[in-house]
Amino acid sequence: MSGMKDFVINKVGRRVPTVVNGREQVPFKGVGAHKPKGNKHGPTVRSCREFPANGDKRVASLKTALKKCHIRDGMVISNHHHLRNGDNVALMALNAAAELGVKDLMWFPSASFPCHAPVIDLMDRGVVHHIEGSMNGPLGDYCSRGKMRGLGVLRSHGGRYQAIQDGEVKIDIAVIAAPTADPFGNADGSHGPSACGSLGFALADSIYAERVIVVTDNLVPFPCVPWQIQGNNVDFVVEVDSIGDPAKIVSGTTEITKSPDRLLIAEYVARFMRDAGIMREGFSFQAGAGGIALAFVEFLKDMMREDGVRARFVRGGSTQYLVDLLNEGLTDYILDGQTFDLAAVESIGSNPLHIATTPFTSYNYHGKGNFASMVDAVVLGATEVDVNFNANVVTHSDGLLLHGIGGWQNCLAAGCTVLAVPCFRDRIPVVVDEVTTVTGPSELIDVVITERGIAVNPKRKDLLKAVRGSDLPIRPIKEIKREVETILGGKPEKARVTDRPVAVIKWVDGTVLDTVWQVED
Amino acid sequence: MSGMKDFVINKVGRRVPTVVNGREQVPFKGVGAHKPKGNKHGPTVRSCREFPANGDKRVASLKTALKKCHIRDGMVISNHHHLRNGDNVALMALNAAAELGVKDLMWFPSASFPCHAPVIDLMDRGVVHHIEGSMNGPLGDYCSRGKMRGLGVLRSHGGRYQAIQDGEVKIDIAVIAAPTADPFGNADGSHGPSACGSLGFALADSIYAERVIVVTDNLVPFPCVPWQIQGNNVDFVVEVDSIGDPAKIVSGTTEITKSPDRLLIAEYVARFMRDAGIMREGFSFQAGAGGIALAFVEFLKDMMREDGVRARFVRGGSTQYLVDLLNEGLTDYILDGQTFDLAAVESIGSNPLHIATTPFTSYNYHGKGNFASMVDAVVLGATEVDVNFNANVVTHSDGLLLHGIGGWQNCLAAGCTVLAVPCFRDRIPVVVDEVTTVTGPSELIDVVITERGIAVNPKRKDLLKAVRGSDLPIRPIKEIKREVETILGGKPEKARVTDRPVAVIKWVDGTVLDTVWQVED
Repeated sequence: MSGMKDFVINKVGRRVPTVVNGREQVPFKGVGAHKPKGNKHGPTVRSCREFPANGDKRVASLKTALKKCHIRDGMVISNHHHLRNGDNVALMALNAAAELGVKDLMWFPSASFPCHAPVIDLMDRGVVHHIEGSMNGPLGDYCSRGKMRGLGVLRSHGGRYQAIQDGEVKIDIAVIAAPTADPFGNADGSHGPSACGSLGFALADSIYAERVIVVTDNLVPFPCVPWQIQGNNVDFVVEVDSIGDPAKIVSGTTEITKSPDRLLIAEYVARFMRDAGIMREGFSFQAGAGGIALAFVEFLKDMMREDGVRARFVRGGSTQYLVDLLNEGLTDYILDGQTFDLAAVESIGSNPLHIATTPFTSYNYHGKGNFASMVDAVVLGATEVDVNFNANVVTHSDGLLLHGIGGWQNCLAAGCTVLAVPCFRDRIPVVVDEVTTVTGPSELIDVVITERGIAVNPKRKDLLKAVRGSDLPIRPIKEIKREVETILGGKPEKARVTDRPVAVIKWVDGTVLDTVWQVED
Repeated sequence: MSGMKDFVINKVGRRVPTVVNGREQVPFKGVGAHKPKGNKHGPTVRSCREFPANGDKRVASLKTALKKCHIRDGMVISNHHHLRNGDNVALMALNAAAELGVKDLMWFPSASFPCHAPVIDLMDRGVVHHIEGSMNGPLGDYCSRGKMRGLGVLRSHGGRYQAIQDGEVKIDIAVIAAPTADPFGNADGSHGPSACGSLGFALADSIYAERVIVVTDNLVPFPCVPWQIQGNNVDFVVEVDSIGDPAKIVSGTTEITKSPDRLLIAEYVARFMRDAGIMREGFSFQAGAGGIALAFVEFLKDMMREDGVRARFVRGGSTQYLVDLLNEGLTDYILDGQTFDLAAVESIGSNPLHIATTPFTSYNYHGKGNFASMVDAVVLGATEVDVNFNANVVTHSDGLLLHGIGGWQNCLAAGCTVLAVPCFRDRIPVVVDEVTTVTGPSELIDVVITERGIAVNPKRKDLLKAVRGSDLPIRPIKEIKREVETILGGKPEKARVTDRPVAVIKWVDGTVLDTVWQVED
């Protein structure tokens, strides 16, 4: 493998390669320390003379479209994870490429899911060379075991936008699954039988890719409104029977945790926000779709009602619980990056106060600011957090790479970052001496809330002061960790990994934060 | 003056300079004949590290903002004409630059109006070197008389987007007047005391300029929704007492012509569209805010009702008359580039079927198609049209440059382009042997409709066939021209101009279509 000889120790003390997949890297220098150089990427100038005057860009099949895009060996093909584990389109595209006989593609999904496991076969057959993008489940496992030819590159949603915008990744062909589209290529995610909500993750691809193909199972006459993806960036439109399995695209409902421990964590999070003075008129917060986060929203909602406090905005991943908040007038807006259940899809498709955002507006660190740092508090999960407040979301303690970064790194920019995590899962500790993989540097992790107490990062003296005198169980993180070790009968085993890198974790500014190592057989 | 020695004769037989303001030019080669090269412009990559984490980009004054943008001699400063003849912001910006002592700016407005006449003084004083942008009225007169140091460059709305996107014009500082904005720089034009409707003309500037300043008189807490201009592209926000004079930003009402001749023209246009089969279920059309165009809409509306026909979309400049069409269900959508009266501003700010478009979606010729060519018919005006169907919208027959191009050139891409013009104005003929300035090449002008008859471009055999047998007064254009000459007692005087160029007219692909010459004293 090219360029894996040289490593350097970066600012968080991690050994990272200086060259990844043939491209020179900048090691992580600390939060806000890296100053980018150069200009944004400009794709080739096109002209209306190359496109049909009547705006009809339909072609018979994805294979035809790929041929017309002059697909060839070694190209970068991108897809998006709006359809999550119900997606049909990425495999359609890669299989069509395989049928055309091309090899060594770099697959660049915004995330991959278990439904994309057949890409393993395409890698074994040489059609796909390697993946740069979050790998949830089987593909991450494949990568961890050293079976991928290139290095995996994991980026946050904002980091992916940054990499495309800055020309670090040049997409040859973007294939965008669209729940609704018109023959011109305008596309919307909020309507149609395969509705998924926002299509924001495909925005950068639509702007910066050389060629863009929209694939839809719900073609409407021009204009498709709203046009979150603009047809003016699209080369071809392909109609297919089905872009995905609606049951796996969005949940019928999202479920709050029923575990008493996790409900306790959720309650602590809500009380912390209230008692620390974060929950105040006009505040903002972000919470994901995990069981604890959902329960937190329900606890906070009660407290907001009780205190007569309204939010200016809340950020999704959106669910029924955020939609209820909006409909009850407890927030002015939902600023939504991703839509998780039917109620949320219905809301974003019809309520003008429920607004689709994109990785550009929300997360791109190489913009003139972004929304993430304007959020008062964010509630996140983690696979591990250590006594120095470094956190991990990508690997498990056994070293296996099984999760993507998503918007997690970007969200750390919030005014108060809360990790809401159980102390252990399946007798594997979450609070540890040192995380397996640094995904978030300690200076951005403010509070760790577990069922056994709340640890505040000593750097956040303001927060410690704010909750002094409250009846919250504020404890040093080392004390919580020791308690966990006592319960579990000792320290956890270290991950058994080799010294061969299989993937790198990028920070939001494009620098390399950590390395994922091949696990031992 | 630099580079004005060399001229070539272009595809429409006009003598055009090969270098304009130091930049090499491509002469017009025919519609669709020029293939662009190279990549889109990429402005400098910025980073969140340079911007306040709380998103508050406000600075005390426009002067402070310009200083922080490192304004210096020779820079390109852009403004926009959303506030039309009521705009205060362009002069604020240029005067602030003057106070800072900078010289030789290139002013790059999307259009200028009589209210911008004080820029003449700034040119005399050397603050502004020259203007590239439409010059309506006094500035056009100043340019025509050879008083500007550089050459004027007139571009269509789409051509302006193309020039910015392709890096032909690199904007150093864009100053955007925003009827509503938040401290992050998100901006909206449809709400606030100085509401103007869409802010689409500032889109290219916000994306491609090195520095962007938003100026508002209606600051709202984040998020300003909708954010047609995205704060992620904005460097500074400035609050001022008033960005403009509401009475001159939009009309209270727009007025239909009362002239019997012009009403007759409007009726002919509507009948032509019906009889030629253009007015059919699901069709589309665009009409501006001129007196004839408005009257045409009223005639067409009656015919649509009568025949039970609905449009899929109509394109603005929008007015009460288009809004009525939407509200009555006679069109599914208004796709709106510019908003001309109070009823239209109210509608675009509240009706989700009244949609803001931009020069990128509608007009940019260097995109992957645009909306303009998908419109079935467009009704436009002209200062002159000749017997070869070339048309002029920028100069008068005396050679004075008094009008901008607007979206006029871009609209010529429609399925059927109708020029609706009186045969003469103030005893000056409109139908002539040869236009003073070619703004639209003959192959794109399909029909000329006057009070004395309808001339169909002989190239459009399909249209001639479609109206054969109708009772419309179809006549050869030369016959109409001869009749006009008989009435006026002879041919018109030729414009008395020198051989010194004062401005060039760009075609939508960035090539040079014609030259405007200095008028004789």
